Amino acid sequence: MTYETVRGMRDFLPEDLARRRRIEDEARRLFRLYGYREIETPVVESYALLSAKAGEEIRHRMYEFKDLGGRRIALRPEMTASVARIVATKLRTEPKPLRLGYIANCFRYDNPQMGRYREFWQAGYELFGSTRPEADAEILAISHDLLQRLGLDFSIKLGHVGILRGVLSDEGVDEGNQNIVLGLIDRGRTRTALKTLKDLGVQELCLRKIRRLQKLKGSDTEAILAKGEEETRANEAAHTSLIELRDILGLTRSAGVTCQILVDLGFTRGLDYYTGMIFELYVTQMAIALGGGGRYDRLVELFGGEPTPAVGCSPGIDRIALAMEERGLFEGEGPPKELLIVPIGEAQSPIVFELARKLRDADIAVQVEVSSRGVRNALSYASELNFAGVLLIGPREAASGKATLRDLRSKVQTEVPFDEVVRAVKSLL
Amino acid sequence: MTYETVRGMRDFLPEDLARRRRIEDEARRLFRLYGYREIETPVVESYALLSAKAGEEIRHRMYEFKDLGGRRIALRPEMTASVARIVATKLRTEPKPLRLGYIANCFRYDNPQMGRYREFWQAGYELFGSTRPEADAEILAISHDLLQRLGLDFSIKLGHVGILRGVLSDEGVDEGNQNIVLGLIDRGRTRTALKTLKDLGVQELCLRKIRRLQKLKGSDTEAILAKGEEETRANEAAHTSLIELRDILGLTRSAGVTCQILVDLGFTRGLDYYTGMIFELYVTQMAIALGGGGRYDRLVELFGGEPTPAVGCSPGIDRIALAMEERGLFEGEGPPKELLIVPIGEAQSPIVFELARKLRDADIAVQVEVSSRGVRNALSYASELNFAGVLLIGPREAASGKATLRDLRSKVQTEVPFDEVVRAVKSLL
Repeated sequence: MTYETVRGMRDFLPEDLARRRRIEDEARRLFRLYGYREIETPVVESYALLSAKAGEEIRHRMYEFKDLGGRRIALRPEMTASVARIVATKLRTEPKPLRLGYIANCFRYDNPQMGRYREFWQAGYELFGSTRPEADAEILAISHDLLQRLGLDFSIKLGHVGILRGVLSDEGVDEGNQNIVLGLIDRGRTRTALKTLKDLGVQELCLRKIRRLQKLKGSDTEAILAKGEEETRANEAAHTSLIELRDILGLTRSAGVTCQILVDLGFTRGLDYYTGMIFELYVTQMAIALGGGGRYDRLVELFGGEPTPAVGCSPGIDRIALAMEERGLFEGEGPPKELLIVPIGEAQSPIVFELARKLRDADIAVQVEVSSRGVRNALSYASELNFAGVLLIGPREAASGKATLRDLRSKVQTEVPFDEVVRAVKSLL
Repeated sequence: MTYETVRGMRDFLPEDLARRRRIEDEARRLFRLYGYREIETPVVESYALLSAKAGEEIRHRMYEFKDLGGRRIALRPEMTASVARIVATKLRTEPKPLRLGYIANCFRYDNPQMGRYREFWQAGYELFGSTRPEADAEILAISHDLLQRLGLDFSIKLGHVGILRGVLSDEGVDEGNQNIVLGLIDRGRTRTALKTLKDLGVQELCLRKIRRLQKLKGSDTEAILAKGEEETRANEAAHTSLIELRDILGLTRSAGVTCQILVDLGFTRGLDYYTGMIFELYVTQMAIALGGGGRYDRLVELFGGEPTPAVGCSPGIDRIALAMEERGLFEGEGPPKELLIVPIGEAQSPIVFELARKLRDADIAVQVEVSSRGVRNALSYASELNFAGVLLIGPREAASGKATLRDLRSKVQTEVPFDEVVRAVKSLL
């Protein structure tokens, strides 16, 4: 009988994991540089919490079940709900602004395909306590910095849910129906969205306006924002959102974001909790977003906390890794292994262990040969696995107090007194 | 409505997580020093894989459910099954010995109590491809090094499942019944175990031998092993196991393990896959083990791989953190935050963002004030949160091209030209 991973789940072998860790390390470096403190929340949360504002699409794809105590629980499909829960409860009295970061695995029962896995990894940056566009700009700058530091060419797709929501509110469409309609638009089902609105009694004039807003997108941001302002002159909330978007865009450029920014006034995302700016990150070679984020000013309050404005982003680690791989950004990785110590005959194990400890205490990575194979086999294993050197200890070495050190690059072999082994190995590395 | 974590699940706030990370960092340092390559496996695995050799106790406490495709899956209760699966499949042809490490969260529906959580974290080191006692000794040395480097006083409880299994085999007790009996002993239910054996037709003479073996434990390892050899003289397999245990003990001392070692000849663990040496790590202040491990020479083969001897350990990160906390080993942590930049008036945001970027490019951690509060409030926030300094940029600073830098420790305030800000801040940190 053989066993496999469950469909859509992945193993990370050493090389795969090293790549993921490189992205995580960069994400953590940005935690430090921008002042985000890392937290971690449980993989298992109550279904009620996770589904409250997840959006229809994600709610249907959650790993949901009952635990042995009969609790309705689920594996988290994203992290924002959990972070907002913490801010609403345990960090309720923490001074604001409060900057929190995370690196976490999330779970969705999606159809496995390129860049889409049922367990996937996200980094995240969440800034609580500021309504200012400077906060939005900071979140955009962090997203930018992460991808730029990793060497990717990318663009930002930028919008504001307040534009469409404002127009719909003015037509009397309530929040629940707005969520349904924005969800449909997010999934590319604009025609169904417009039909739904028509059925709700929304006037043809407004439907046409929505269609026109959806066409307002591209990199000529000034012109697009100007046209958007014209379109929304009669819609106060939508207009305010547009002005806010313009401010955020300007500050984002000041914050050193140099990549292409595509403004998209009809842009929506598949989560119900957004209240303001939203964005996604794209590379030309991939159709799916590498990550995204936005403003969610009401979620903490919904979870029982003080009213707390918030904005955040979650770069997708797996997709970033995929994009980096396609661009060849992982090439030339993997340092050589350091040292293999080989006892010749069982009697040498104590000396070998002692030398290994001395070397490790000097921060040198050492593998001890523990399979009692012959010297020739051990040497070819060491060459195959790219070790820098091999230290041989046989009866002759034990008697003379000198180890035989073989440099696997130069093939030079030298005799080294036991108490000079650390120095000799260091000079070889 | 407020939301809480699900019973038995925990949030890690920044301070908690920093403590866990310190242990994880040390575990990863040992991956490197001992040549273990880190892997990661999915949280969700097939129930069949996870339950195959988990042991009765753990099997009953698994988070088991069906996914939307009707697959019988579970959250991993431990990592050895998953790592053995990889060695049996994806790493089948990898040169041996193969050293793999992991840091992973596992899930068990245990009764929440001190040191026992439903989601818990384990590090792990698994060495595949050697039957030699040197391999067992390496695993014991790594466990020792981790706890020693973290500053703990601890002891190792050491045994060998081959002793009891050998005695039972000689009485014709099959493996399935051995698993049941060893499981009962592991849970402290020795009387029930002996009654079960009696019901299976095991002779009183043998039951008495088991009782005597169970009393053979303590730090006087030489005397205990000698008595054990006498007890098992008539049981070949048990006797061989004892000799092996003696070899492992000797090599473990050679490998620099200096802590107390308690040999326990009646020792068992709650997992069915062990075939040889087993051990657990204890600190005096806690009744539960900080971790443990052992040899499992048949698991890779059971999962469809080549016959591959294996030995490993999994130190429990949460319990180590708890023990370190009780010993005050986390005190005096937390470096001061670096710099807060405060714009005075909205017009200064672009200059502030530009300076923040320059500083971050020089690897200095900077928070930008984004809540448009007054200077006084920003300064008291910075003091409260232990920042090293504050950089103020108002209209006067913008006009003169000089920022005001306030050292929050000395309270000294200086004027710094914009292009000297990096140097000035560096000298303040």
